[in-house]
Amino acid sequence: MQPKFKRILYGGDYNPNQWPEEVWKEDMRIFKDARINSATINVFSWAKIQPSEHEYNFAELDKIVEMLSEENYAIVFATSTAALPGWMVRKYPEVMSTDYEGRQHRFGQRHNACPNSLVYRKYASAMADKLAERYASNPHVTCWHINNEYGVTCFCDNCQNAFRVWLKDKYKTIEALNKAWNMEFWGHTVYDWDDVVVPNALSEGIGTEKTAFAGISIDYRRFNSDSVLECYKLERDAVRKYNQEVVITTNLMGTFKDLDYFKWAKEMDVVSWDNYPAYDTPWSMIAMKHDLMRGLKHEPFMLMEQTPSQQNWQKYNSLKRPGQMRAQSYQTMAHGADTIQFFQLRRSVGACEKFHGAVIAHAGTENTRVFREVAQLGKELESFGTKTLGSENLSDVGLIFDWENYWALEYTSGPSEDLKYVEQIHKYYNYFYERNISVDMIPVDADFSQYKMVVAPVLYMVKEGMKEALESFVKNGGILITTYMSGIVDQSDNVHLGGYPGPLRDMAGVWVEEIDALAPEQVNEVKFTDGTTASCNLLCDLLHLEGAEALATYQKDFYADMPAVTRNTFGKGATYYVGTQMDDAGLAKILDQAVNEVNVRAVIPEVTGLEVTCRTSDDTRYYYVMNFKDEDQVLPDSLGGKTDLISGAVIPAGTVLKKWDVLILQEEK
Amino acid sequence: MQPKFKRILYGGDYNPNQWPEEVWKEDMRIFKDARINSATINVFSWAKIQPSEHEYNFAELDKIVEMLSEENYAIVFATSTAALPGWMVRKYPEVMSTDYEGRQHRFGQRHNACPNSLVYRKYASAMADKLAERYASNPHVTCWHINNEYGVTCFCDNCQNAFRVWLKDKYKTIEALNKAWNMEFWGHTVYDWDDVVVPNALSEGIGTEKTAFAGISIDYRRFNSDSVLECYKLERDAVRKYNQEVVITTNLMGTFKDLDYFKWAKEMDVVSWDNYPAYDTPWSMIAMKHDLMRGLKHEPFMLMEQTPSQQNWQKYNSLKRPGQMRAQSYQTMAHGADTIQFFQLRRSVGACEKFHGAVIAHAGTENTRVFREVAQLGKELESFGTKTLGSENLSDVGLIFDWENYWALEYTSGPSEDLKYVEQIHKYYNYFYERNISVDMIPVDADFSQYKMVVAPVLYMVKEGMKEALESFVKNGGILITTYMSGIVDQSDNVHLGGYPGPLRDMAGVWVEEIDALAPEQVNEVKFTDGTTASCNLLCDLLHLEGAEALATYQKDFYADMPAVTRNTFGKGATYYVGTQMDDAGLAKILDQAVNEVNVRAVIPEVTGLEVTCRTSDDTRYYYVMNFKDEDQVLPDSLGGKTDLISGAVIPAGTVLKKWDVLILQEEK
Amino acid sequence: MQPKFKRILYGGDYNPNQWPEEVWKEDMRIFKDARINSATINVFSWAKIQPSEHEYNFAELDKIVEMLSEENYAIVFATSTAALPGWMVRKYPEVMSTDYEGRQHRFGQRHNACPNSLVYRKYASAMADKLAERYASNPHVTCWHINNEYGVTCFCDNCQNAFRVWLKDKYKTIEALNKAWNMEFWGHTVYDWDDVVVPNALSEGIGTEKTAFAGISIDYRRFNSDSVLECYKLERDAVRKYNQEVVITTNLMGTFKDLDYFKWAKEMDVVSWDNYPAYDTPWSMIAMKHDLMRGLKHEPFMLMEQTPSQQNWQKYNSLKRPGQMRAQSYQTMAHGADTIQFFQLRRSVGACEKFHGAVIAHAGTENTRVFREVAQLGKELESFGTKTLGSENLSDVGLIFDWENYWALEYTSGPSEDLKYVEQIHKYYNYFYERNISVDMIPVDADFSQYKMVVAPVLYMVKEGMKEALESFVKNGGILITTYMSGIVDQSDNVHLGGYPGPLRDMAGVWVEEIDALAPEQVNEVKFTDGTTASCNLLCDLLHLEGAEALATYQKDFYADMPAVTRNTFGKGATYYVGTQMDDAGLAKILDQAVNEVNVRAVIPEVTGLEVTCRTSDDTRYYYVMNFKDEDQVLPDSLGGKTDLISGAVIPAGTVLKKWDVLILQEEK
Repeated sequence: MQPKFKRILYGGDYNPNQWPEEVWKEDMRIFKDARINSATINVFSWAKIQPSEHEYNFAELDKIVEMLSEENYAIVFATSTAALPGWMVRKYPEVMSTDYEGRQHRFGQRHNACPNSLVYRKYASAMADKLAERYASNPHVTCWHINNEYGVTCFCDNCQNAFRVWLKDKYKTIEALNKAWNMEFWGHTVYDWDDVVVPNALSEGIGTEKTAFAGISIDYRRFNSDSVLECYKLERDAVRKYNQEVVITTNLMGTFKDLDYFKWAKEMDVVSWDNYPAYDTPWSMIAMKHDLMRGLKHEPFMLMEQTPSQQNWQKYNSLKRPGQMRAQSYQTMAHGADTIQFFQLRRSVGACEKFHGAVIAHAGTENTRVFREVAQLGKELESFGTKTLGSENLSDVGLIFDWENYWALEYTSGPSEDLKYVEQIHKYYNYFYERNISVDMIPVDADFSQYKMVVAPVLYMVKEGMKEALESFVKNGGILITTYMSGIVDQSDNVHLGGYPGPLRDMAGVWVEEIDALAPEQVNEVKFTDGTTASCNLLCDLLHLEGAEALATYQKDFYADMPAVTRNTFGKGATYYVGTQMDDAGLAKILDQAVNEVNVRAVIPEVTGLEVTCRTSDDTRYYYVMNFKDEDQVLPDSLGGKTDLISGAVIPAGTVLKKWDVLILQEEK
Repeated sequence: MQPKFKRILYGGDYNPNQWPEEVWKEDMRIFKDARINSATINVFSWAKIQPSEHEYNFAELDKIVEMLSEENYAIVFATSTAALPGWMVRKYPEVMSTDYEGRQHRFGQRHNACPNSLVYRKYASAMADKLAERYASNPHVTCWHINNEYGVTCFCDNCQNAFRVWLKDKYKTIEALNKAWNMEFWGHTVYDWDDVVVPNALSEGIGTEKTAFAGISIDYRRFNSDSVLECYKLERDAVRKYNQEVVITTNLMGTFKDLDYFKWAKEMDVVSWDNYPAYDTPWSMIAMKHDLMRGLKHEPFMLMEQTPSQQNWQKYNSLKRPGQMRAQSYQTMAHGADTIQFFQLRRSVGACEKFHGAVIAHAGTENTRVFREVAQLGKELESFGTKTLGSENLSDVGLIFDWENYWALEYTSGPSEDLKYVEQIHKYYNYFYERNISVDMIPVDADFSQYKMVVAPVLYMVKEGMKEALESFVKNGGILITTYMSGIVDQSDNVHLGGYPGPLRDMAGVWVEEIDALAPEQVNEVKFTDGTTASCNLLCDLLHLEGAEALATYQKDFYADMPAVTRNTFGKGATYYVGTQMDDAGLAKILDQAVNEVNVRAVIPEVTGLEVTCRTSDDTRYYYVMNFKDEDQVLPDSLGGKTDLISGAVIPAGTVLKKWDVLILQEEK
Repeated sequence: MQPKFKRILYGGDYNPNQWPEEVWKEDMRIFKDARINSATINVFSWAKIQPSEHEYNFAELDKIVEMLSEENYAIVFATSTAALPGWMVRKYPEVMSTDYEGRQHRFGQRHNACPNSLVYRKYASAMADKLAERYASNPHVTCWHINNEYGVTCFCDNCQNAFRVWLKDKYKTIEALNKAWNMEFWGHTVYDWDDVVVPNALSEGIGTEKTAFAGISIDYRRFNSDSVLECYKLERDAVRKYNQEVVITTNLMGTFKDLDYFKWAKEMDVVSWDNYPAYDTPWSMIAMKHDLMRGLKHEPFMLMEQTPSQQNWQKYNSLKRPGQMRAQSYQTMAHGADTIQFFQLRRSVGACEKFHGAVIAHAGTENTRVFREVAQLGKELESFGTKTLGSENLSDVGLIFDWENYWALEYTSGPSEDLKYVEQIHKYYNYFYERNISVDMIPVDADFSQYKMVVAPVLYMVKEGMKEALESFVKNGGILITTYMSGIVDQSDNVHLGGYPGPLRDMAGVWVEEIDALAPEQVNEVKFTDGTTASCNLLCDLLHLEGAEALATYQKDFYADMPAVTRNTFGKGATYYVGTQMDDAGLAKILDQAVNEVNVRAVIPEVTGLEVTCRTSDDTRYYYVMNFKDEDQVLPDSLGGKTDLISGAVIPAGTVLKKWDVLILQEEK
């Protein structure tokens, strides 16, 4: 695949505007030691470069760009529109967003603009236009970074009006809207678009997590995601006017709930994202998020932000251990990143992120452990040249991740409040991760035919066309894995009547008569056909076979001996239905069978505690081999004798990798 | 007692308006299989039948009524006023209630009307009038169901104005109000009725549970309960105009805190209520709520709602086990219900209750476990004819439950935040439940002379006349049981000065000098006169005997050897005072003594793990015998040889009842 | 030191206005038995004595003052301005404060006035003026008590305007403000004072505890503390006009966070405070708060409030055990109190404090345990005459407590959310408490030369001049103890660049390269030079020696063997730097060394479980000896043979003190 950039961008957020100019020179000197070749600038400078409604001042920014250009940096140029200037809020209070409680906010914080404020849109796109006009022809401006970590949800009157327009476009008639939201329930039938109010704490919202009418609340999430995307597009188009080639992105946030990133990615030239695991985040969860970000465009992505040392905003901001930042960086690349960028290059002197780690600490010197690790990594990456850029991760397995399912599933009132979307998806991802089976995170409208196996846990909302697409995939020999809480509702959160799992019923060959919810202190047990057992909890589907065979049955309670997990041959393929939340070993037993059936292969044949991925370029396979375990791990035979891209050495099988050790082993195709 | 209905109503909430007409016929067919003979309709149809201020449209409702009439259903006709139409909120925003935080809500959810909105009252009573005018002469309309689950508490300016009027009616002068609320404390003396503001988070409220001035907050609860009751009465009176005979009710909610149900019941022809235990609610708590609902009018009641399978809105919505719904239904009747109605007959397709169980599931078929259980029960109930209708539960024991005490006790700041009214009452109820001693839940103004024993735990607020009534009861040979935190305040939450327990001091023969609060990790111990001991916690009264004898004394701390529990002969009767929260065995020791003293008898003489109640008609005693224990239970001798109403079989003593098994054994008087 | 009063004031809050006059006579009779000689009156009477804007009515107050004067009471005269009258709120809604959520409150509760409301200031100072004009010449009016427990924080528009003025006075130019708050971060640069908005939930606030910009939030705390102080000063000055000699105070609340009490104390003639420990508050924490209150003016203080029996507003309001109130009172005096006053003399009949303990309980009689204990103490105190009044607590150790550090440290986002200021200070205080080493709680601008040792835990904010002051102290032979999270920021919460601990680096002789945060389940270990070890957690500084010697090193993780605790000789003194939170034994090891080095002496040479303090008058030392342990304690030799002020007896060494026992042993100088 054609890489987006001519080198591995290595750098990050850089705010010289927060510092006197004498510091800039020192920065350049120090960064050079670390082989930093890229800087993300102008992220939060709106108030500085537009001090009033009529006035723009690019003097300082010109100097910054000039300096970085002279130093041959790849500039990632942000448009600075993610925090409103104070004067704008004072003159136009409507630019500030209104929260879920219905309170319009005042000047403060960031990511605070109402996405439907015409004033905001006018000034934000004007700013992007001004910036691009001035800087887009500079060949060092390698990438435009629109705004920053988009994510606001606003409930103001502007948004309410825009929502009504959005609804009218979608539903055409008020009758269609009433039907879609099942408004006859609780007598909510409306007769006028103006009767629709934003679903927040003062109307349909129940706490911040639940809603009386999922139909309106899901639509509001769609609308809000679209509204914010509209802001992105306005700025992007303003930039594009001045440069048809340059890469334009904005930084995403993994499994962030509020924006439908698959829809967003279509508007982005490259996906970039910010990776901030906590001290206890499992490595498989980090890997899943990388794969999700890669999956958004099915292309290599940018790591826009990570900390070289510690975060500040988590409960316990542990230091990254020696080697950990490096290993985490390689894991990022292992899953498809072509850049490594930090937040931030120099630690702020004040305000709420001053304890966030940086390449240059408050000590202001290169004589720190953290800097030395950054510099080591910089030298390594520089040595790769363009070799790995654009290489691809190939997968037999597609795992569906869908924002509308995320929203809808977590809005459900019942059967259990412990049902969390990302956690559910991760349980399945983790199986493949533990076995070094490459997974693509895919949308509901993916081309399934690329895969041997499609995994669709809690596929609660099955929209139009999806039944046909999945059936076609299975009929043609694919394996579909799905679970409890799948096939339940349509795009409006109305139930597919006639029996669960609705549109999946034919291909699964089962009918779910009832769904039992288990409290946290309760468990059931399943027994497999070979007599082994596993524990299960959370939900238990009461299943009837309609052509499927039972792979496991419940052992307790009144549904003892009813099927808990099933397999149904359908055309040339098969559907596995997992009717309860099983422990890891139990789930593995099912997935092992499915994987074997369709010959899904791991990256390497051996079982290992190492994480191993493979990126493939036109002529080479790069095996990324990393040890995230506390114990030493031995390099498996199949990887022995290959040359490590980092050290240039041939690495024999049996080599011991300590915690945080990394190899990138090359194999010609 | 004359039954309210001519048969056991068996049915529930039915919303054909949410479905196309072809589904209605299918409903009729399926319901017939289950012997469903009643439907509650029009619960949330306001927006449908009144699409605008000037327009009513009963076309669909006519069809529904016609169909149900043809099928000989007993129609429970709701007035649909529990959820405001969108157009009304848009035109008259004041109809929406204002929450404790002072925020007027917008269109959304239900139970959302300001009870003092004249606009709401006008349109709600107009709707009841229109409906009754049209349908009240239909003989199938067996019962009118006003609104639904009343329960709003509103803090808007309308309510504030109405509250001032209510206060002026009550107190006449501002001086009387100042005195009642002890307004000299913290300098709150007011000189004008307009200085009174609603006690919410912006004024006297402390969190949602506490208050700076219990006087105003308790009065506000009284006022709000009265205001909502006024809404009920307006609709009831509108219906009554058109039919002088028909039964009118609204569905209550057990120990729901916000409405004074004893006051409400006086305005209702029959009490009906909705029973939604959680997966871990003790059966004794359910029984207590039934008895409370029966106690409201001291008459048989309606079970307006229960789920045939599972709720959706609890944390963990477990399925009812096979036989559980049936056993729960019989328990309901065992405690005085003459109807069994479900929410709901057909599961909704969308919105927040779509995972709430129903007679017909989303599968849309009668081929489900749940339907089969509903049908079995329907057949059984049909076989009873009118036999059990109107039969009474007779009790030697009256247990006081009082909403004003509920409010006042939980408003207290000190001595312990763990003091919860319903929990305290249930500790005493549970003793009788475990022993199958029938209990009437009674108000503070009950005719105590009906009982051998009156139990009054945490009788914190003792209003005017109550001292005399209770003293008279005891003098005449009754046994009064009371506890810590009793006799403390008057109707305005001002302390009865002179020493606790105030008005109860004479009859209890004790003076409580101090009240110690124990943190959760702390316990004390009491020793009975026979040398046995029991654990105690929560509160420890430091008691002095003033004529009473000590039944138990503390064993630890500086009040070791002080009395903890006492008995005082008073006239022909006696008062027991329980000065601390004892463990179950300790409490039983005291209550055993009291029960024996006055010869309170259980329904059967044997000790058993079965729940047994007795309903008595003019000529027959019906023994309801149920096993809610996990272990098998054996039918005691005294119940052997009687004929089971359900099976028609004679059941010998020693018969084993498995979990959920039920017998209704008949005995001629 | 010249005592403030001519006798030990013994009494407390007295509200005869809440009672009919016949009760007053009874009060006088009963109080006499308890040797009560002082009453705090008029605390919450504003509405009573000013029933409308134009009307004052002192008739009842005159009677109260007359009665107390006749009985020769020392009257503590409150100005009654701590709760707004209802009419004022109705006429001038702006007098009510606006909360953190931005909601202006309505009439209710207390401590509710906006401190910048000109209406409030006008009427509050007018009230103080009227009262002083009328009563200040009465010789029985011994003390004026302005308002009550000041503590509001208001976020209204009045305050916003006043804040802008305050800021302009402080910063002069908007550029200086931008720099101080580091407003270039997140593009918050402002160009107009009117762009500054109050930092609450609608602007820079993050929850109630955190903030996006500590600079503005800390300044807002300073401003609010100053604004409230301005209210105090207005009333104080009004009183002072009428009496140049009388003592004026207001009651403080220990470590209450919102007011900078060191700044306040400068405006007060004497410090008074309210001591309300919970059932599980450590005695060392109570002692620390007393020492802090004494430290505010470095003078004896008043105990304005404590409960004789129990509080009402805590979760579990346990009774004080027999002897506990007496022992607690003596502990208060042991740490510098010259008065013992109760809230309250008679228990209220209604409203939220009616379960708060009092000298006279609801029983209304002197025949209670609590009264007897109050009476016993009263007699004892009366017997002391003026002996102990004005005597001083002398200390070798100064422990810094600084409200600005309190605010700033708890605003930090990172490294750990478990870092709580008072808890951190208490860990160090506790070491000295356990060893009976007298400690002065001192401000950051104290005269350090008075001390052998200055302890400055988490001295996060080091303001201008402090480096010089501390260095001078150490150079001259002092011992400075400081810790992790010290020397980090300047007065505006901007980091001292160049390496932690910034201004303390030279004197500490260390450089802190990184700060690791440990989650609650994590620990590390330190090893001392003698080979012993201790556990540590929370934070671990990664230290480099720059002249200091390591006293202990880490034992685990990647920084094993790095220094954890250091000592640096600096001039004639030394600085100890404690880089991690150690367990008590570990901390003691360090502090033992420091204490020995500079010959800090405990009050007595022996190790004992007794608490022992010493107050020194011109000619006598008073040793307060108290047993707060559950076990008996033996009087150490050094205290044997002295005369107990309470009993008059000579107490031999070896005497056993039971829990709550107290001696005041006299020693001539």
